[in-house]
Amino acid sequence: MIYLDNSATTIPDPSVMKSFEQASTQYFANPSSIHQLGGHSEHLLTKAKNQVASILDVTPSEVIFTSGGTEGNNTAIKGIALEHRKRGKHIITTEIEHPSVYDACKSLEDLGFEVTYLPVNKNGVISIEDLEAAIRKDTILISIMHVNNEIGTIQPIEKIGEICKQFPKLFLHVDHVQGFGKVPLELRNSGIDLCTLSGHKIHGLKGTGILYMRQGVNLFPLFHGGNQEQSFRSGTENLAGAVSLGKALRLIKEKEQTQGTELKSLQAILREKLTEIDEVQINTPPEAAPHIMNFSVPGTKPEVIIHMLGEQEVYISTKSACSSKQKEESRILLACGYSKERASSAYRVSMAYSTTEEDILQFADYLQQAINQFRKVME
Amino acid sequence: MIYLDNSATTIPDPSVMKSFEQASTQYFANPSSIHQLGGHSEHLLTKAKNQVASILDVTPSEVIFTSGGTEGNNTAIKGIALEHRKRGKHIITTEIEHPSVYDACKSLEDLGFEVTYLPVNKNGVISIEDLEAAIRKDTILISIMHVNNEIGTIQPIEKIGEICKQFPKLFLHVDHVQGFGKVPLELRNSGIDLCTLSGHKIHGLKGTGILYMRQGVNLFPLFHGGNQEQSFRSGTENLAGAVSLGKALRLIKEKEQTQGTELKSLQAILREKLTEIDEVQINTPPEAAPHIMNFSVPGTKPEVIIHMLGEQEVYISTKSACSSKQKEESRILLACGYSKERASSAYRVSMAYSTTEEDILQFADYLQQAINQFRKVME
Repeated sequence: MIYLDNSATTIPDPSVMKSFEQASTQYFANPSSIHQLGGHSEHLLTKAKNQVASILDVTPSEVIFTSGGTEGNNTAIKGIALEHRKRGKHIITTEIEHPSVYDACKSLEDLGFEVTYLPVNKNGVISIEDLEAAIRKDTILISIMHVNNEIGTIQPIEKIGEICKQFPKLFLHVDHVQGFGKVPLELRNSGIDLCTLSGHKIHGLKGTGILYMRQGVNLFPLFHGGNQEQSFRSGTENLAGAVSLGKALRLIKEKEQTQGTELKSLQAILREKLTEIDEVQINTPPEAAPHIMNFSVPGTKPEVIIHMLGEQEVYISTKSACSSKQKEESRILLACGYSKERASSAYRVSMAYSTTEEDILQFADYLQQAINQFRKVME
Repeated sequence: MIYLDNSATTIPDPSVMKSFEQASTQYFANPSSIHQLGGHSEHLLTKAKNQVASILDVTPSEVIFTSGGTEGNNTAIKGIALEHRKRGKHIITTEIEHPSVYDACKSLEDLGFEVTYLPVNKNGVISIEDLEAAIRKDTILISIMHVNNEIGTIQPIEKIGEICKQFPKLFLHVDHVQGFGKVPLELRNSGIDLCTLSGHKIHGLKGTGILYMRQGVNLFPLFHGGNQEQSFRSGTENLAGAVSLGKALRLIKEKEQTQGTELKSLQAILREKLTEIDEVQINTPPEAAPHIMNFSVPGTKPEVIIHMLGEQEVYISTKSACSSKQKEESRILLACGYSKERASSAYRVSMAYSTTEEDILQFADYLQQAINQFRKVME
């Protein structure tokens, strides 16, 4: 099997799975229970939170465990909007956000908020000037992703953070789901107020995630109740999920250190091999994240090609998994200014640190074969 | 170990754990991915949903997988309120709801909604007349729990459902987290529009739950994004969680059938043994759910007694785990009309189908010893 859909989800690391199992059975008690068993669970939760905080270089109280990236993004966006609505109802985001940011913003329009969707250039990057021009007195939130999930473009978050520092009443949220473990991002003193991470994109388990909330940030919780997670995310803590996520974070950070350069080389090889295929038009810019490669093959039907590759146990995707079942063209590629044809014949290869050169070379061969076969059938 | 805090959380069943692990590793692909691996995951998700639907006797599209009870309750309450706010802004609930319902309703007051909190009688039961009198033209939602988490009282949901059927534009939500698997509740044709279940209260895993949404009910999702779960709960599906929850539901339903009477007998024995302890005042009414027994020991400090019992590896609780760290008296017992003293010296024993008569007898002995010891220290 050549699995190249790691931006949709990754294979859980066996040691992450084991952590989950051990915590589930040996620390099953509710961390909120006041008896000794509850105390043991609470202690382990504190350890997990400390570990995560240390990896992210933030303080433990700034770490909120969630059920995943979509929860993190929605909590940040709707939570800030509802809490601070009396100060202003204007939100800035971009045209290329993940659906869990884009549609969360859209949903707020129904509740009386106004949203500015910043355009991007051909490479999928916003303009800092556009951003500065969009900020108004009633702007309460800017939500901009770090690494784009479809084309791998990196936004200039550091610069954006510096700008936001000049507006202390304006909150900056960053969807870091695709970037974490691949493209470093400082949180401390960065101007970032909220940052979303997901477990299952980094060989953790589905149903796990983190929302970083800078000390002092307040929001309207999506979940009210028992006041767990500093009151920002009520509900019995998924302790085993938290412990397993701490492990996944640690492992991916280690790999980023030791294998980061390799991944970049693999991407260069992939780019070269794709360039050798006549029909391929590459959409991912050269300065993108190292694990994503998006390209179009105009005239082909992605569902058909992906099915052909699947027959060879080679797995890639079209758009993001979260919008892959919509038949229309990619909203992201249209925003970059590509034609409808190019935007509706796009493919995404997304690698993991376990991806090998052999995988890439074989994939390129299979892709060429699939395109040839498709052409023959269509002739 | 004598674990009698099953209403806070339960020990995961080993076979549930195994299901989770198998699905996590063998079906790791994203069910939304269009390649064949994604198709396999999607197929398993459909199977899990069909299984749950069959157990609940509802249709599969009425089953929404969530991250737990707090998410289910908040989604139902805030989701209905935000979606139907233009029709009315009045909500009815009770004074004895779980914090995830009570505080969700309170939070809506900040957003301009008006909430009626129905009182309860000494047994913790609302009056149908009160409910009928509270319904107004602008009432959009009634949220009433089935089994109370602190004292085990059962609300007359069947009758409430019949009343709600007369108001087709009014939604009825039931928090069935403590009742499921212990006190049967029909969903089909019941007048119930939304119903919350949690996995970890029935030997499933933390981070898993279900929101039943009757066909035709619409709400404002807390999570927008990739439109998973019929668009009502976006986010990559926690497939392994869903599969494991299906198994937990099946197992607890089997136990309810075969061991329901035993549990009732155990409760009767527990009541008798507690009555023999002079200082004990029983708060749980005779016609309550079979697994919960709440009592007060005025003059004692619950934290101290619970710690003493914990030294003997006997685990019980004070209030619900979700409010156990607040030092003040139980809101539920105060609502029942009990004195502050009685409400601040309350204990909850919550049993599972694995609880034995031996456990109960030993617990009663240890409790008597702990009370004696406490009295001696305080003399």
